Amino acid sequence: MMHTLEPDGHSKVTIHFQPHDKLTRVPVGVSIFNAANWIGLAIDSTCGGVGTCGKCRVQLCQGYSGVTPADRKVFAPGELEAGWRLSCRAEVQEDTVCEVPRLMGNPKAALMGFGRHVLLNPNVHKIPLQLTPPSLEDQRSDFERLRMTLEDEGFEINAGLGVRRQLPRVLRAAEWQVTAVIVGQQLIALEPGDTTARSFGVAFDIGTTTVVGMLIDLIGGAPVAVRSTLNRQASFGADVIARISHVMLSDSGLDELTARVVGSLNEVLAGLLDEGQVAPHEIYEVVVAGNATMTHLLLGLTPEAIGVEPFIPAADDLFDVNACEVGLTVHPEAPLVVLPHIGAYVGADLVAGLLATGLQQKPELRLLVDVGTNGEIILGSLTRTLATAAPAGPAFEGARIQDGMRAADGAIEAVTLSEAGVKLQVIGETAPLGLCGSGLLDIVAQLRLVGLLDASGQLLNPEAAAHRVGPELSRRLVVGKDGVKAFILADPEISGTGRAIQLTQRDIRELQFAKGAIAGGIAVLMRELGVSADDLEEIYLAGSFGSYINPQSARIIGLVPPVSVDRIRAVGNSAGEGARIALLSFREREVARSIPRQVEYLELSGRADFNDAFIEVLQFPELADLALQPEAVLPPLAAP
Amino acid sequence: MMHTLEPDGHSKVTIHFQPHDKLTRVPVGVSIFNAANWIGLAIDSTCGGVGTCGKCRVQLCQGYSGVTPADRKVFAPGELEAGWRLSCRAEVQEDTVCEVPRLMGNPKAALMGFGRHVLLNPNVHKIPLQLTPPSLEDQRSDFERLRMTLEDEGFEINAGLGVRRQLPRVLRAAEWQVTAVIVGQQLIALEPGDTTARSFGVAFDIGTTTVVGMLIDLIGGAPVAVRSTLNRQASFGADVIARISHVMLSDSGLDELTARVVGSLNEVLAGLLDEGQVAPHEIYEVVVAGNATMTHLLLGLTPEAIGVEPFIPAADDLFDVNACEVGLTVHPEAPLVVLPHIGAYVGADLVAGLLATGLQQKPELRLLVDVGTNGEIILGSLTRTLATAAPAGPAFEGARIQDGMRAADGAIEAVTLSEAGVKLQVIGETAPLGLCGSGLLDIVAQLRLVGLLDASGQLLNPEAAAHRVGPELSRRLVVGKDGVKAFILADPEISGTGRAIQLTQRDIRELQFAKGAIAGGIAVLMRELGVSADDLEEIYLAGSFGSYINPQSARIIGLVPPVSVDRIRAVGNSAGEGARIALLSFREREVARSIPRQVEYLELSGRADFNDAFIEVLQFPELADLALQPEAVLPPLAAP
Repeated sequence: MMHTLEPDGHSKVTIHFQPHDKLTRVPVGVSIFNAANWIGLAIDSTCGGVGTCGKCRVQLCQGYSGVTPADRKVFAPGELEAGWRLSCRAEVQEDTVCEVPRLMGNPKAALMGFGRHVLLNPNVHKIPLQLTPPSLEDQRSDFERLRMTLEDEGFEINAGLGVRRQLPRVLRAAEWQVTAVIVGQQLIALEPGDTTARSFGVAFDIGTTTVVGMLIDLIGGAPVAVRSTLNRQASFGADVIARISHVMLSDSGLDELTARVVGSLNEVLAGLLDEGQVAPHEIYEVVVAGNATMTHLLLGLTPEAIGVEPFIPAADDLFDVNACEVGLTVHPEAPLVVLPHIGAYVGADLVAGLLATGLQQKPELRLLVDVGTNGEIILGSLTRTLATAAPAGPAFEGARIQDGMRAADGAIEAVTLSEAGVKLQVIGETAPLGLCGSGLLDIVAQLRLVGLLDASGQLLNPEAAAHRVGPELSRRLVVGKDGVKAFILADPEISGTGRAIQLTQRDIRELQFAKGAIAGGIAVLMRELGVSADDLEEIYLAGSFGSYINPQSARIIGLVPPVSVDRIRAVGNSAGEGARIALLSFREREVARSIPRQVEYLELSGRADFNDAFIEVLQFPELADLALQPEAVLPPLAAP
Repeated sequence: MMHTLEPDGHSKVTIHFQPHDKLTRVPVGVSIFNAANWIGLAIDSTCGGVGTCGKCRVQLCQGYSGVTPADRKVFAPGELEAGWRLSCRAEVQEDTVCEVPRLMGNPKAALMGFGRHVLLNPNVHKIPLQLTPPSLEDQRSDFERLRMTLEDEGFEINAGLGVRRQLPRVLRAAEWQVTAVIVGQQLIALEPGDTTARSFGVAFDIGTTTVVGMLIDLIGGAPVAVRSTLNRQASFGADVIARISHVMLSDSGLDELTARVVGSLNEVLAGLLDEGQVAPHEIYEVVVAGNATMTHLLLGLTPEAIGVEPFIPAADDLFDVNACEVGLTVHPEAPLVVLPHIGAYVGADLVAGLLATGLQQKPELRLLVDVGTNGEIILGSLTRTLATAAPAGPAFEGARIQDGMRAADGAIEAVTLSEAGVKLQVIGETAPLGLCGSGLLDIVAQLRLVGLLDASGQLLNPEAAAHRVGPELSRRLVVGKDGVKAFILADPEISGTGRAIQLTQRDIRELQFAKGAIAGGIAVLMRELGVSADDLEEIYLAGSFGSYINPQSARIIGLVPPVSVDRIRAVGNSAGEGARIALLSFREREVARSIPRQVEYLELSGRADFNDAFIEVLQFPELADLALQPEAVLPPLAAP
């Protein structure tokens, strides 16, 4: 299904940017401004590409673009004749060559996300103004006076009732010296005096389990504080299906879940404001990433149709909402920007992940996998990008695993086997209580490495094991009263539970199904693009769980295609990082807005080839095929 | 002061429309669509001139207009070459000739206002839809599905959180058969089934004293019900200055006055809905006219700066507010359209009056006077229109007149003098209690006619009177204990108060000052335009008080210039009529939006020539100069 592609989305033309000598191919009708933006080439602008500031001038050397009314306001007839156009209004019709003037100012830039160079250009503008007081000769209304003064500064504004109500008193109390706060084209506040030094925003990543918020200084671009809390919806079930069921089964379910997530965000906000010594009214914009169910629940949109076939979201475009409409305690007119999603199960968190990694903007083929109950998979490059969601089940989160648990204190998060026995790494350095997802991957991979687990996923019999490994390992392979084989990770005397912590044959089957779903999804996408593992430049493992995965283990169990381990990167909370990028740069936000149209969503549940692929990858890879370099494990790449 | 004119507002070009053979002159940069609209020439459109419906095609025969992106979506290259453009996007740059296709449909039209032919084209559209249900092959979100279906129907929409929240459940409960309610470009509701037969709006005229509301059927254009009530703000003072003072003197004053006027509107609404058997959610749009202080108070904008020099409104453009933002009990997403004002004392009621009379669109010179505490005066034609406000004081409303009263039961509203004595017309046909404004004008004019009042405004002495008129009149001219002369209108035995009802010499002076202010304002405007009474095609007397004025009396006292009485028309509640026109036609609303830019506001309090003119017109005209035809009195012209 490719509904997100526009009718003529396949008819592409080339744009050649000078003097940078950069090339890109875009669909007919894309503006030169956006096309430049998508390949990371900055064209000057203060209005965000809406044709009002007149700064985004380019000169067309080849290729046609009509003269728009906005062009006529900015250029003299001779300049129009010479091919000068506002790049935000100029939609390409054919192969085009254009000259981009060097940036006038000296824009701040920062390395953000994963190797991405982002120009700091927030959507929030604070403009200090000294207005001419009115007189009998100049009876313009307060708003008109302000509007015209801001127009002189290059800002064309709208304003709602709230800020208009403040105008007369603020202007006179401040003796006409004020600071205008403009977000996009909306005047959201008028502050007395010069307050241009203080401007803040918050980026949220709403996970099904955890809510993370980052308070950002929009002047310098630096994070001021980071906080997280458990999503208060958790008591209604661990995964999105449980949350959706609650909405379906209870008349007040939607309102309850919305109130819970808003409460979680406000708790995080309170902590951020306290730590940063910032007032609520100084937060002028909020950007949110999260899976589609979470963003629906935040906005009070029912996710019911996401939960049942054919899996339909209520809305998927990025639209204008005030943060106060959902009850966030920030400036009452601050916009709430919820990043769009690609499909019902490939959410705004993945859109943010694409923003942070730039996967869809680079010429090389890359794979982004967010490992969780639903494994979200994105494969592609500048040429073409595909997305899908694979129903992995909760094994990676420790559920349906006999001694499974979440990645909390006491969870075994990493395991190494050797002749000397078992080495466990436990979160919180307490006695082990159970096995979390990354530990599960590790122990299965290690059992494969030492030869206690065959490619079909069968543990050896104890007798066969004793021939294969030393006693300290082989004694741990046992058969339970129920006849099910298991491997003892921790003896009762070192376990924090008083019982042995085991990995059972059934647990291994759960993991096989989970990784089979994801690997099967990857296989479908690779076949669709006609590529093989050798074509992969990089694999990104995303999500907080992704940070902890040992890339080597992921390869050994066949979760990801067999590429060299140094090409596998844990990108951690790429969703939060993408939300931060969208907050700091409205150009990047426009990129995010366009991502759902650039990425094709494949629904696996409708495809026979997914079932075939799933069966093919259910087995573990043969070790001989992996060219293992056991120590070549990259540490998680921390975001700056 | 001419701040409302745009910088290049004086550089005008001619547009010649074919096959209608109509000419107009407009400033450079005006769209052909708007220019046609302003001279009452209808060009087809469903999007309201925002470039999305593609219907407003014209062919340029002469004159340049660039090709816009919207043009390229609609026209083939050959058509562009042949001069076809969307008239709403085509801004004229030079003298232009264009061909307008005949209207495709058969638009409804009605005679409205005063000789105005208005096409029914409300901003509210109800579109019946049968959507294709989603499937695994078509996973568009509910909103995207709806948006694309409406795009096929020619509507490009936005939608807020409220309607998006309803979408999933309404669509499924209605089995994908729904009616979209679009106001402007905003989707405000999605109703199950086909509800296209019912669509309503309300037009309000908010007077300082009275609130009038009209419930309109937006399908047929007919009024369903009309209700009025006293403005509940009245207890805070009779005029706008008293209301503004209350805001200044009390911290809660603004909130109180806003709550009062909203309460008045909701009372009228309740009556309208009850009478029309219409539900609140079926009111999809509200249009409001009123003076600037009233519209400020409705919106919760402080009018303080209107009350003191240099008389500055908080805002003057027509901006988007939801009716529910101010607390009106209509559809929660229905827009509230407050018509703009021209100056602090020439309000939206006068803008609506211009819409109802078309004064600024016609080639002949006309004068519109709204007689009240502030006399609002507009003089002009298509070529140039001026507006001002004259400080008449409350005499016309019966205040500061010894036996003055409002136009209520018992008020003497008309007077005729003859040798037989005094003939009184009393409201409610009860015994007379006092004299209202129209009666005041009549008695003073009649005293002039019978020769008991000289041109300087002096009543004759009783002795001189006895020589001039018969005993039944002369006996009524008396000198009170305080030495002040008076004319007895009603003897104690027929008066409802038990006392005689009199017009005193002091009352006559009050009226002289009041009429002098208005006549002085008119004189300043006429001098500014360089015109004389002979150039005046028509004089409109507006406001509810204007309906009752005897035009002959207005001439005799010199309130209006000395034109033939058949050129003086009482246009009644032209403000309410203009609000109704703006509700029934978004094109007319665009005209209203442009009126403040087309009309120049003159502030009298800054002008020495106003004081001179005031002194000149303080006297009453010589009867010999008036060429009187005593019976040539037009009845009030009722709006249809």
